[in-house]
Amino acid sequence: MYDLIIIGSGPAGLSAAVYGKRAGFNILVIEKDSMSGGQVLNTHEVDNYLGMPGINGFDMGMEFHRHAKEMGVLFKNVQVTGIEKTNCNSFVITTEDGTEETNSIIIATGATHALLNVSGEERLTGRGVSYCATCDGAFFRNKTVAVVGGGDVAAEDAIFLSRICAKVYLIHRRDSLRAAKSLQDQLFEASNVEVVWNSAVEEICGEEQVEELKVYCKKDDRHYTMAVDGIFIAVGLRPNTGLVRDIVACDEGGYIIAGEDCVTKTPGIFAAGDVRTKMLRQIVTAVADGANAVASAERYMLQN
Amino acid sequence: MYDLIIIGSGPAGLSAAVYGKRAGFNILVIEKDSMSGGQVLNTHEVDNYLGMPGINGFDMGMEFHRHAKEMGVLFKNVQVTGIEKTNCNSFVITTEDGTEETNSIIIATGATHALLNVSGEERLTGRGVSYCATCDGAFFRNKTVAVVGGGDVAAEDAIFLSRICAKVYLIHRRDSLRAAKSLQDQLFEASNVEVVWNSAVEEICGEEQVEELKVYCKKDDRHYTMAVDGIFIAVGLRPNTGLVRDIVACDEGGYIIAGEDCVTKTPGIFAAGDVRTKMLRQIVTAVADGANAVASAERYMLQN
Repeated sequence: MYDLIIIGSGPAGLSAAVYGKRAGFNILVIEKDSMSGGQVLNTHEVDNYLGMPGINGFDMGMEFHRHAKEMGVLFKNVQVTGIEKTNCNSFVITTEDGTEETNSIIIATGATHALLNVSGEERLTGRGVSYCATCDGAFFRNKTVAVVGGGDVAAEDAIFLSRICAKVYLIHRRDSLRAAKSLQDQLFEASNVEVVWNSAVEEICGEEQVEELKVYCKKDDRHYTMAVDGIFIAVGLRPNTGLVRDIVACDEGGYIIAGEDCVTKTPGIFAAGDVRTKMLRQIVTAVADGANAVASAERYMLQN
Repeated sequence: MYDLIIIGSGPAGLSAAVYGKRAGFNILVIEKDSMSGGQVLNTHEVDNYLGMPGINGFDMGMEFHRHAKEMGVLFKNVQVTGIEKTNCNSFVITTEDGTEETNSIIIATGATHALLNVSGEERLTGRGVSYCATCDGAFFRNKTVAVVGGGDVAAEDAIFLSRICAKVYLIHRRDSLRAAKSLQDQLFEASNVEVVWNSAVEEICGEEQVEELKVYCKKDDRHYTMAVDGIFIAVGLRPNTGLVRDIVACDEGGYIIAGEDCVTKTPGIFAAGDVRTKMLRQIVTAVADGANAVASAERYMLQN
């Protein structure tokens, strides 16, 4: 019987593990992948986590895991297949290996960026292909980039990048944006942003780094290339909540409904990191969630 | 004219500086002290900021400052004496050196722990004297510690420490606690917690580390010594908001009212770190605030 089981070991789960262990709880971290770190592992360079400038994402994942490991945190690398509430204020977590019982759970399963699913995308990720302008924009100072998408995030990314880059193309498959009017106003005001309507990226090309995009314009039925140094793909983010939608309340996007305190609508279950409803999904906000989720779990256990 | 001025350069202010600079804003950080880092500088060891295990607080402050400095953030070391709103959606900040104008402000002035004001307290801070059980409790595994105070924080600290330490004394000057009933119940249940009523710590003694306390019991009019390895002082925290109470709304404790998004009731002013209303005041939650405050300032500037 554990005090606390943490599902997922990206930045939120690992931070929760450090705080949970330091708080004297008997904890277990369950990770479906063979390595901890989550999305960070696939990040080329991270330059905005205070105190660790310019670190490679893979190294950061390793450092984060080492920190928890050195504290004596117990890890199991196995897929969770179910979570059930028992009759006596505890939970049973079923995995491919068997079952574990716990008083409380922190869900830190993260989110996955939707892919364009075009040739070159996977190979050049971290080499000019990015899914986060806030994270990677600063690496493209005075360069030419494209943003793909038509929603609020795509518009915000294009505006953000317009302050940093020489030129920003916003490539959208339709002839109008879904983004909020105020964002569109700002976008059209930025002199270095050009919206490329009715167009889809068909291939991302480059040897070591992104060099050009193959684009198809439906309206003109025309294929052409566009020289860019980077491409920001903003076509959606999917929370990894398939497993828990029966046991915690999620919003329409599938995110677990929880505020800064990480408290969900199910007593005893807490949500930390990208998986919960929040304004800004960043490594440091996930790490902060890990601390807050443990503080909330602690209060919950005091009262139960 | 700056886009953003950040007042204070502890973890929240420095993180805001990194995010603000990366977002392409023209920013200035104003710090009253000669060094950046805030309360972290006086912390002996920090072991819960993910990725930087067991770091000395002073070194951490230096690393944090170096990160912002390397990004080209501009610092001014001067005391702010006033903040005023102009007629055209901007603010004028007056310092001992003159005035600065800015479109937005992040207040990251932190908080200060109330002191016991007894002999040995300052000298042994970081050597057994601590103001934060969540931060430092884990360094006292299987040791004997005292907590001083009678409110919720003191009770929570004593419960927290009871899971880690061999023995916890809770020293309180009165014959009852102000702490919530549920906390008191938990406290009295913990077999290794002993409440020392009607008593005040008069001196903290030890050569290199805390060794014993000189305690005075009012009720029995008795002076005696108590052997402890550490003392956690939980007699209050004071937000550093004297300067801004006329321009932003604060709660009754003096904290600037702001949620996770760091948005205050005054458009254009944001609050990050220990200075705002929040559940858990930790380095990592302050660093996360820096990121959120910049994202909110960015949205504000898009709309104004």
